[in-house]
Amino acid sequence: GEMNMALAQEITEFVGTGRGNSIGIVIANVDPQLRELMGIDPKFRSIGIFGGRTGAGPQIYAADEAVKASNTEIVKIELPRDTEGGAGHGSLIIFGAEEVSDARRAVQVSLEDLERTFGDVYTNTAGHVEFQYTARASEALNKAFDAPVGKSFGITVGAPAAIGVIMADVAVKAATVDVVCYSSPSEGTSFTNESILGFSGDSGAVRQSIIAAREVGMKLLTSLGNKPESVTKPYI
Amino acid sequence: GEMNMALAQEITEFVGTGRGNSIGIVIANVDPQLRELMGIDPKFRSIGIFGGRTGAGPQIYAADEAVKASNTEIVKIELPRDTEGGAGHGSLIIFGAEEVSDARRAVQVSLEDLERTFGDVYTNTAGHVEFQYTARASEALNKAFDAPVGKSFGITVGAPAAIGVIMADVAVKAATVDVVCYSSPSEGTSFTNESILGFSGDSGAVRQSIIAAREVGMKLLTSLGNKPESVTKPYI
Amino acid sequence: GEMNMALAQEITEFVGTGRGNSIGIVIANVDPQLRELMGIDPKFRSIGIFGGRTGAGPQIYAADEAVKASNTEIVKIELPRDTEGGAGHGSLIIFGAEEVSDARRAVQVSLEDLERTFGDVYTNTAGHVEFQYTARASEALNKAFDAPVGKSFGITVGAPAAIGVIMADVAVKAATVDVVCYSSPSEGTSFTNESILGFSGDSGAVRQSIIAAREVGMKLLTSLGNKPESVTKPYI
Repeated sequence: GEMNMALAQEITEFVGTGRGNSIGIVIANVDPQLRELMGIDPKFRSIGIFGGRTGAGPQIYAADEAVKASNTEIVKIELPRDTEGGAGHGSLIIFGAEEVSDARRAVQVSLEDLERTFGDVYTNTAGHVEFQYTARASEALNKAFDAPVGKSFGITVGAPAAIGVIMADVAVKAATVDVVCYSSPSEGTSFTNESILGFSGDSGAVRQSIIAAREVGMKLLTSLGNKPESVTKPYI
Repeated sequence: GEMNMALAQEITEFVGTGRGNSIGIVIANVDPQLRELMGIDPKFRSIGIFGGRTGAGPQIYAADEAVKASNTEIVKIELPRDTEGGAGHGSLIIFGAEEVSDARRAVQVSLEDLERTFGDVYTNTAGHVEFQYTARASEALNKAFDAPVGKSFGITVGAPAAIGVIMADVAVKAATVDVVCYSSPSEGTSFTNESILGFSGDSGAVRQSIIAAREVGMKLLTSLGNKPESVTKPYI
Repeated sequence: GEMNMALAQEITEFVGTGRGNSIGIVIANVDPQLRELMGIDPKFRSIGIFGGRTGAGPQIYAADEAVKASNTEIVKIELPRDTEGGAGHGSLIIFGAEEVSDARRAVQVSLEDLERTFGDVYTNTAGHVEFQYTARASEALNKAFDAPVGKSFGITVGAPAAIGVIMADVAVKAATVDVVCYSSPSEGTSFTNESILGFSGDSGAVRQSIIAAREVGMKLLTSLGNKPESVTKPYI
């Protein structure tokens, strides 16, 4: 809005905000001392900083689109234990670029894509289930989940974690997919109360697995509370 | 209730729900890809999944009774950092079984026992103190706390962690018990704001230690907020 | 208040309470079994226990003053993932002493100093920014952040972590300071949604860096919510 435009004029590093208490910022010339402590390759003069209090899947899938649409690389993906009292993660994603305009573009695309990527996040008073899908995985999904680049890749997330376990089993049985990763509270998450399955394969199969897991996951989550609602508008 | 019975007819894996936003689920034939990623022994065709947003001690002590009462083994106990904004853990417990009926039985016993095991969880606006006791520890307590199987075993938990430290000192001085484990925010917990003492010994001594720690812990927790209340009904 | 005085008469270990649901306790003679499990040097017969649900920086800087003002050493600083649903840490700090009166003094000084050290913690609905400063770092800051003892030392903390990254860059560019540490959600924090910079140097330079970072951090945090407010009264 207007307030953010005024802020962007005052602080040129500020790019904007998005769902999940997400914010986007750029640094044109990262201080060398800080760059070294952050472990960022000196070839990246500029960085884009993108992350929020609530959500990791939505931000990672948005960053994946941003990497495809900009001349940047993914430098870091860090996942705090957050969601503002909820069961999941927050996020901190760093894009590296040679030019600040590229970093800015990556952050802008990411922020704009959040409305879409929050679409298959369904929450209620007891927890959440989340689904993400892409026809073609790029560098962010590779870095976060070991997704094979260029192939279709989906995730199912269930919280409390018990729901995520059965969703994983439903997903992998629903179609011929290659399971790429499985995470749970003490392995591969930041002690979140989630179980996460990542899988690639034929685009239709990945979608079919997600849709099957979504049906079961939403019913199970309903047993603990009110009917889970999409945070924005489903896209899968 | 009725809604859960309808859900169980629709999704045969669903067993039920319990306190602490806990849920129980079974899988008759775990997918082999998923089983391998979860590190589950192939001898367990079926698994029982049991866990919640709030509580680890209550679920672990309930699962300990369930293991005694069913033909199952404890495969995993994972403790997310949760309690829905509180200071403690959530839980994800996996039972392994050869037959799904055994897994189901373990999950059912666990869910039903939660009313009892939440009895000595006392919460207020500032934190919680928790006490658990069994006359005879079994596999769940052994896996979670290294409790000697077959012996009486108790825990004291205080949050914020400072309260747990003094409770631990009071417990160990109140009777002749063998201290088995001590956990704190950066060691042995999932970065929860708790200090936990686990101890075994003569059944009367274990109870005496718990009762002494409970008296001090509840008074100290009261100094930070309202009078702590039992979540259900004390059993120790 | 009166209630706490009554409690202190009943439980002689109780010292008092402070901001952030903080509590202070002493143990005159730590049980040897517990001392060993906690990894506390036998030379410390007594310990002071100090920590809370909300805040790590305020408690660590307060403990740093307490160590200077008492005949104690810092035995442990542990940082749970807490802040009662917020983005940051809680705290558990253990002072070691030969005499319980020294432990008590350290805890008392710490509790009293919290009003000051919460002064540059600014919170809103979306997160927080925090600043701490000392003209002369002592043992607590050395243990927590590797701060050089005897030199001026400051920290900037931003949550969500994206805000902390730009604040770090602003701080290090604003004056000639030596960067001592940088922490982020997956390195050096307890999976909090914070980025933290610690720096030492000339007292004026450290303050200048903090003031520059504070100006930017507060504006960025405002873009996500209401105007951030000091928890008590700014001291820097």
